[in-house]
Amino acid sequence: MSHTPARPVYFDCDTGIDDSLALAYLLGSPEIDLVGIGTVSGNTSAAQAAVNTLGLLALAGRTDVPVAIGQHDFLTHPFDGGAPHVHGDNGIGEIDVPVAERQPEDEDAAHMLIRLSHEYPGTLEVITVGPLTNIATALALDPTLPSRVANLTAMGGAALVPGNITPVAEANIGNDPEAAAATLSAGWPVVLVPLDVTMENVFDEDDRAALLAADVPLARAVGEMLDFYFDFYVSTYGERSSALHDPLAAAIAVGGITATNAPAVDVVVDTSQGPARGQVICDLRGQRRGPVDQPGATVRVVLATDAPLAPHLIARMTAAQVLVG
Amino acid sequence: MSHTPARPVYFDCDTGIDDSLALAYLLGSPEIDLVGIGTVSGNTSAAQAAVNTLGLLALAGRTDVPVAIGQHDFLTHPFDGGAPHVHGDNGIGEIDVPVAERQPEDEDAAHMLIRLSHEYPGTLEVITVGPLTNIATALALDPTLPSRVANLTAMGGAALVPGNITPVAEANIGNDPEAAAATLSAGWPVVLVPLDVTMENVFDEDDRAALLAADVPLARAVGEMLDFYFDFYVSTYGERSSALHDPLAAAIAVGGITATNAPAVDVVVDTSQGPARGQVICDLRGQRRGPVDQPGATVRVVLATDAPLAPHLIARMTAAQVLVG
Repeated sequence: MSHTPARPVYFDCDTGIDDSLALAYLLGSPEIDLVGIGTVSGNTSAAQAAVNTLGLLALAGRTDVPVAIGQHDFLTHPFDGGAPHVHGDNGIGEIDVPVAERQPEDEDAAHMLIRLSHEYPGTLEVITVGPLTNIATALALDPTLPSRVANLTAMGGAALVPGNITPVAEANIGNDPEAAAATLSAGWPVVLVPLDVTMENVFDEDDRAALLAADVPLARAVGEMLDFYFDFYVSTYGERSSALHDPLAAAIAVGGITATNAPAVDVVVDTSQGPARGQVICDLRGQRRGPVDQPGATVRVVLATDAPLAPHLIARMTAAQVLVG
Repeated sequence: MSHTPARPVYFDCDTGIDDSLALAYLLGSPEIDLVGIGTVSGNTSAAQAAVNTLGLLALAGRTDVPVAIGQHDFLTHPFDGGAPHVHGDNGIGEIDVPVAERQPEDEDAAHMLIRLSHEYPGTLEVITVGPLTNIATALALDPTLPSRVANLTAMGGAALVPGNITPVAEANIGNDPEAAAATLSAGWPVVLVPLDVTMENVFDEDDRAALLAADVPLARAVGEMLDFYFDFYVSTYGERSSALHDPLAAAIAVGGITATNAPAVDVVVDTSQGPARGQVICDLRGQRRGPVDQPGATVRVVLATDAPLAPHLIARMTAAQVLVG
């Protein structure tokens, strides 16, 4: 074991099948310590996401991790019911996960994040894999938050590839463009992990079989829920498989996967009512001859990574029991 | 010579250095007959573009081709002076071209297009390499125009690559988004040739030398004006060279270059005042496994072509004297 103290991480999620992969990855990563989890509506409701997250933590024997329910509605419009056609009615592919004994915290996710930023000033890292509603709420409650956060890694956006809820909008950003705009313009160091790279990292039936065969309850549960997710992606990839959106953001944040092309560029979220609403407009002009950082830009957009995620993800998920207890 | 009658073409341009390449290509293409040219503000003013076009036609000995000046201002805002840093103060790299004796027509470009559509009903083809202001004006004057036009090929847009006047807007569309919206939604068959392919077709110093060495006055003149254009592109390509925007649209329209990936998809031009104003939003979702046409879509977006343009372009430009007289 390394003697470097594990880095404190606040994880914000809308669990969600690929959120579950990300959670399992983080639980299997000794580099970081999950000091708190907030849930937000997106793939499913914030409340259901908390039920799912606590259940998965219990499966992993990690009942020490606190979970706070976050915002149910988006900043300017109500939650619309999520994506049951992608993630199932319960958000986790309609599999049964035992209800955890541990309850959600009394505080909400935004207040948890602010509290943790005071407990770990300057070192707290934030990983988000859902809409940025909790983060924007925390920024509104405490505009000094960025000064106490080391960095934020967000799964979201589509820079030079099609969106997934409109031709140009990706779901996490498109669900709450105003929250994304506030988060991406707050001046803290942000790493944005868009569909450009998450769609290139695919999990297939062989990968799923490796999870199902593992002597790790959480890995097996995630393997089961992927059955539902794989059906959704048949029309995209031509076979049962899935993109690895959320776990890629987690792996880049932890450092298990390295971004090889991630220029810091001017980024604007379209919050108009026009046809590009929800698009993350990344100014990628002038990048033809290689990554060039734009002066003053605080958001890095990941366009390429150093290795495929699937084998690394499986390794961490199936070794997770080592970390239990 | 083929016995197939040459196809009648109306060419709409804002001449412009790459417009000059496109014009020279069209003059060197026996498949088509340039029955009329309209000019529009863009790279330079509509009036200057007409001076340039008539001068280049005179150089080629093609004083038979009528040129009509089109719209000076865009549909919702005034022309702002063009792009002298790209195309030079006179639009053609500040080279001297003899002033043509032939004058612009009395009719304007929109009326010329409508008249030609009656002269060549059902067979007239339209090629545009500037803002779509003249086309939208013609559509407003005569909404039945599309029923008499065989097809329209337009250089414009940036589907999955950065724009060139904003992070998401290309100049021809971004200069007059309302005109582009009207043109692309008019129901006629449109082939859109965006930066995705035009930026991949490059003209370099060897290519320019081939033009300068040709025994063809128009080819030599274009070779001279490229000197200015090449300077602009050094920051993009890392060496003196240029993209081949307008001539690629001309070559695809004529059939000298074939689009190998050009799905017909839903296309919307962002005419909002938001940050994506001027973006051509092409719905390229669901194309991962190969081109798929969307039902009812009338705009094909060219994403790949069968061969590099430069050698083909040089061949047609340097053989152009065969067609004179």
